[in-house]
Amino acid sequence: MVKIAVVGASGYTGVELLRLLVGHPEVDICCVTSRQHEGLPINRVFPSLSGFCELVCEPLDVGRIAERADLVFTALPHQSAMEVIPDFLAAGCKVIDLSADYRLKDQAVYEHWYQEHSSPELLAEAVYGLPELFREQIAGARLIANPGCYPTSIALGLAPLLKNKLIDPASLIIDSKSGTSGAGRSAKQGSLFCEVNEAFKAYGVASHRHTPEIEQTLSTLAAVPVQVNFTPHLLPVNRGILSTIYASQNQVLETAELIEVYRQFYSGETFVRVMPGDQLPDVAWVRGTNFCDLGIVSDGRTQRVIVVSAIDNLVKGAAGQALQNMNLICGFNEQLGLGIVPLFP
Amino acid sequence: MVKIAVVGASGYTGVELLRLLVGHPEVDICCVTSRQHEGLPINRVFPSLSGFCELVCEPLDVGRIAERADLVFTALPHQSAMEVIPDFLAAGCKVIDLSADYRLKDQAVYEHWYQEHSSPELLAEAVYGLPELFREQIAGARLIANPGCYPTSIALGLAPLLKNKLIDPASLIIDSKSGTSGAGRSAKQGSLFCEVNEAFKAYGVASHRHTPEIEQTLSTLAAVPVQVNFTPHLLPVNRGILSTIYASQNQVLETAELIEVYRQFYSGETFVRVMPGDQLPDVAWVRGTNFCDLGIVSDGRTQRVIVVSAIDNLVKGAAGQALQNMNLICGFNEQLGLGIVPLFP
Amino acid sequence: MVKIAVVGASGYTGVELLRLLVGHPEVDICCVTSRQHEGLPINRVFPSLSGFCELVCEPLDVGRIAERADLVFTALPHQSAMEVIPDFLAAGCKVIDLSADYRLKDQAVYEHWYQEHSSPELLAEAVYGLPELFREQIAGARLIANPGCYPTSIALGLAPLLKNKLIDPASLIIDSKSGTSGAGRSAKQGSLFCEVNEAFKAYGVASHRHTPEIEQTLSTLAAVPVQVNFTPHLLPVNRGILSTIYASQNQVLETAELIEVYRQFYSGETFVRVMPGDQLPDVAWVRGTNFCDLGIVSDGRTQRVIVVSAIDNLVKGAAGQALQNMNLICGFNEQLGLGIVPLFP
Amino acid sequence: MVKIAVVGASGYTGVELLRLLVGHPEVDICCVTSRQHEGLPINRVFPSLSGFCELVCEPLDVGRIAERADLVFTALPHQSAMEVIPDFLAAGCKVIDLSADYRLKDQAVYEHWYQEHSSPELLAEAVYGLPELFREQIAGARLIANPGCYPTSIALGLAPLLKNKLIDPASLIIDSKSGTSGAGRSAKQGSLFCEVNEAFKAYGVASHRHTPEIEQTLSTLAAVPVQVNFTPHLLPVNRGILSTIYASQNQVLETAELIEVYRQFYSGETFVRVMPGDQLPDVAWVRGTNFCDLGIVSDGRTQRVIVVSAIDNLVKGAAGQALQNMNLICGFNEQLGLGIVPLFP
Repeated sequence: MVKIAVVGASGYTGVELLRLLVGHPEVDICCVTSRQHEGLPINRVFPSLSGFCELVCEPLDVGRIAERADLVFTALPHQSAMEVIPDFLAAGCKVIDLSADYRLKDQAVYEHWYQEHSSPELLAEAVYGLPELFREQIAGARLIANPGCYPTSIALGLAPLLKNKLIDPASLIIDSKSGTSGAGRSAKQGSLFCEVNEAFKAYGVASHRHTPEIEQTLSTLAAVPVQVNFTPHLLPVNRGILSTIYASQNQVLETAELIEVYRQFYSGETFVRVMPGDQLPDVAWVRGTNFCDLGIVSDGRTQRVIVVSAIDNLVKGAAGQALQNMNLICGFNEQLGLGIVPLFP
Repeated sequence: MVKIAVVGASGYTGVELLRLLVGHPEVDICCVTSRQHEGLPINRVFPSLSGFCELVCEPLDVGRIAERADLVFTALPHQSAMEVIPDFLAAGCKVIDLSADYRLKDQAVYEHWYQEHSSPELLAEAVYGLPELFREQIAGARLIANPGCYPTSIALGLAPLLKNKLIDPASLIIDSKSGTSGAGRSAKQGSLFCEVNEAFKAYGVASHRHTPEIEQTLSTLAAVPVQVNFTPHLLPVNRGILSTIYASQNQVLETAELIEVYRQFYSGETFVRVMPGDQLPDVAWVRGTNFCDLGIVSDGRTQRVIVVSAIDNLVKGAAGQALQNMNLICGFNEQLGLGIVPLFP
Repeated sequence: MVKIAVVGASGYTGVELLRLLVGHPEVDICCVTSRQHEGLPINRVFPSLSGFCELVCEPLDVGRIAERADLVFTALPHQSAMEVIPDFLAAGCKVIDLSADYRLKDQAVYEHWYQEHSSPELLAEAVYGLPELFREQIAGARLIANPGCYPTSIALGLAPLLKNKLIDPASLIIDSKSGTSGAGRSAKQGSLFCEVNEAFKAYGVASHRHTPEIEQTLSTLAAVPVQVNFTPHLLPVNRGILSTIYASQNQVLETAELIEVYRQFYSGETFVRVMPGDQLPDVAWVRGTNFCDLGIVSDGRTQRVIVVSAIDNLVKGAAGQALQNMNLICGFNEQLGLGIVPLFP
Repeated sequence: MVKIAVVGASGYTGVELLRLLVGHPEVDICCVTSRQHEGLPINRVFPSLSGFCELVCEPLDVGRIAERADLVFTALPHQSAMEVIPDFLAAGCKVIDLSADYRLKDQAVYEHWYQEHSSPELLAEAVYGLPELFREQIAGARLIANPGCYPTSIALGLAPLLKNKLIDPASLIIDSKSGTSGAGRSAKQGSLFCEVNEAFKAYGVASHRHTPEIEQTLSTLAAVPVQVNFTPHLLPVNRGILSTIYASQNQVLETAELIEVYRQFYSGETFVRVMPGDQLPDVAWVRGTNFCDLGIVSDGRTQRVIVVSAIDNLVKGAAGQALQNMNLICGFNEQLGLGIVPLFP
């Protein structure tokens, strides 16, 4: 049994971590923190948890948490995360950080897109926790930078093409659409029901902060520097990211050949499902689960390939992937606690 | 291991049965049927099931199914169900029927609201499968009439008041709202996205077929004949039923006293969660689970009590309750395979 | 041309007033105020208004507004409204107030449900602006208390029954469901997309502030004091209120007879549509319009009548009714600017 | 007054035509047809129309319609449209066809993507009714091919760039998302609420029938043959299309410069709103109206331009544009009956 603390438990990522952790047979949740709900049982904050978790929300006291926890999930906003993570590490905890603070390897890039970094010395040590692509580095890590939701959907969608040098990396265009839980549970006018429902828009065009994270991973996969156009959109659903990705093929393959490339690349990967040629992913088919569903279409007319990638932004895009990383770090079966069937409809 | 067949697997109730059954440790699904999708693997019908169930949809051949299955879930429309259930029973299968065909004890009442009954001799034998109220009769049953979704939410909401004779049964008014999956997966104009989304209406006012089923159970609980006003509404959500129930109190109790009555009545019941006095149920808090959440408010001004009852219509209102009945029949732990945490948001 | 100011233009009621006012041929909008967006053109706050209204949001300066405006719509929260309305009246403006501040005739009742009233001397003068029921008083009024959204749907639904003494007022149970725009545009966690979408709950059970307003009007109509059970619910749609109302009939009439009572009562009323016996209202059929659609069903079994009333909460429940009142006050055709066809789907 | 028939009135395009036509001051609707609802008043099919249109649905009898109508809107599926349009023309009616049957100039292209064409001799005469781009040809036309919804959003989004030769036409990638009303009102499983709600998927990837129509118009604008990648997605909203369009700039301009190009190109066009640089379109801002809102962003890093185009698919993408064409044909003010303010929220 591993002793777990969830720091920042009252957001959507926090409650999703708890949903998954209470069903994990090797986990003992010893502590949840929430500044906003300090003193309140977490099942009063989220009645969904009634009967599963009665812990009372604590303030974020690193020392008192580190006394009890082996591993800490930090589900805090960027900047808040790096204010406490060095102390957790110093106190002997392992940390899986769901913020963006340790995802970018280059301090200057981080500081260009976010703000000054207060613990840049940890950037080299932090392991980017995308198991299907970087599994071997994760098991021994002390600090996991859990990938962003958009970047996860995109990296898994493009890895087989880039690793096999089947496309021109300079041609990449990524059009992503995310459910509204990605915007978090804090009260913002732009996240109100009446602003999102029956609405649809692009945002952060040519300027979204996930761009450098996406480019960092794609550059690693392509072994050359990659720049992309990445356009996120806000989707009137609770959960789900669908990324539609366009690239020019170096040599035009048939759809069936491309699907075979993906099947081989992801052979043995439980959480990646390559769809048959006549079906394409839908965020509805992965709801509540750690799956990434991939569809691939070759367009002979334009010599491009179109990849469609679907995940649940709160699971494979956040809490589920964090559990997968925890399983690797703790030496558990990687699928433990994640064998969830999608909820449809 | 119990060998299970799911007859009528391609509707929403069918896929929900499969979602739950593939995660049940004592179940071996040996057969799924679908007239519409005969010959197609069920994971092509529902890509959500990819990686969990690869069975090919079969035609409904009672003999061939009965050779393999110990227990059959019939997820067919009413009338179609009673056309095959006597044969399954004759062939030695136990049957949990999710249609309305064996719920009403009085053949005349059934025939008034539906049509002629082709096996009325089974009505007396069939057990109404609402475990929290009729558990002792279920274990030995050969044929379970799995309760309707609306009736489940209402019977659980009213049982403590009626059994304790705290309300006037003649005063009952029940205003229910159901998610659209209750209308099934067949293509009907009234179930189209554009007809339901941004819309809300009552239907079947003073004439809905669940009325006699509701009254039958409430009459049993009250030990006097009960007639109610029951008004269903169509809610633009996928899942969930919320019933708001009004009754005149025989003697006005405080909200806290009424909550205590409910707590005692449902003491030991895992799947009923009586909410604290300052919180009321929301269908969002039970999504994907077998819970029935209950909220109770006493109104001293009007001397009435208002009960709010929330379930997931596809789980406690259909497939989950069916599994709970299966667990009882098979002698498994009643919660086996049903320990699901609600998916929020 | 009447010169109009909209005070509090940046909420949902404000933008709805502007949507209707820019299409009104006898209106000159001279001023819009918004504390939050002072200095910003209103079409930047609401790009929907681009091409229709370029006014810059002003601070709320009664003197400067009264110099220019003949009639002021106050779309402010309660309490904020009564802080400025006496000054507008003193400066010679007519006021149509969309808050609750002048709706209740009895100061003590107001102060029980809200807070201390700072201008109780105006309560007797204020006219409750529900034209179909109180038209004759509206034309000459200086201060209109524009009715609440729930109370409008309920009063119109019950007036024919109460005025004709066809029901027992003590038996009234009102189950209402409102779209989320009723909660306003301020950023609150409970109004976030992920909290409302795929969710449904009751709120304010036996304690909602619209209760005294509802009872005041129903008591006037019944000519006896009336107490009701009123339960509002939060509906995952942008717009629309549906109220389902239950009452015991004094003498049981057929559905067709009751419909005829309604047809006669609302004969000549453009904005009330009594539906035929085989159709019931849906909030989708009144979207964007000033209609109140009514359906009536008699239940001979229980001797009750069920009335279903549908309005758009932002139009007949707020801005549209306010325009209707303006038309009466200014001597315009009562339908002017309100001849809008519902937007379906 | 022009005498109008709406052929195929019971679909979403049909009811939208009626919504707009009943508010048009120069129109007399003389006839509506519906095979499915023959004999039923159209306000029983669509209660939204109660009080606006009481016409009874007729069968599609060309002769009887042509006796009464000057101009016919055909809102039929492709193939059904071309079965009657030659007869309407022969009988002296003008026709605005909302199907795809006369949009493609090249018979072979039509027959490749659809089926055999039964009146290819009319293809040359039919005028593609996109007024902002082809206004001068429309006024004198006898047969208007009303553009598709996707093609309208795309052509308006790209015309300024292509006409000014600012982009490389070979680089075009178009990622479009459409509300569900685009799928029509016929009962199909894929359009059910539970299949679309909380779901999102691409469809028709590299194979959608709007592709040749898009390419035909873009080729005309670019004055060279253009091939594109066009990917439609199904959006869980009733109305609205958002197209996100990517192209390589021939010479990189600033966002402000590009916006100025659009402002000049669409100077004087009421129905195209070029958004300021810090705001981007949202389908919510055009709901119910004939507007096309355009946002433009230059990405210096990748030397691409991203254009975002939003329309209401039922208005500018269908019925509204059809009215605009009618106004031009009949010599009315082009904006007549279309001065609608968007419904927000």
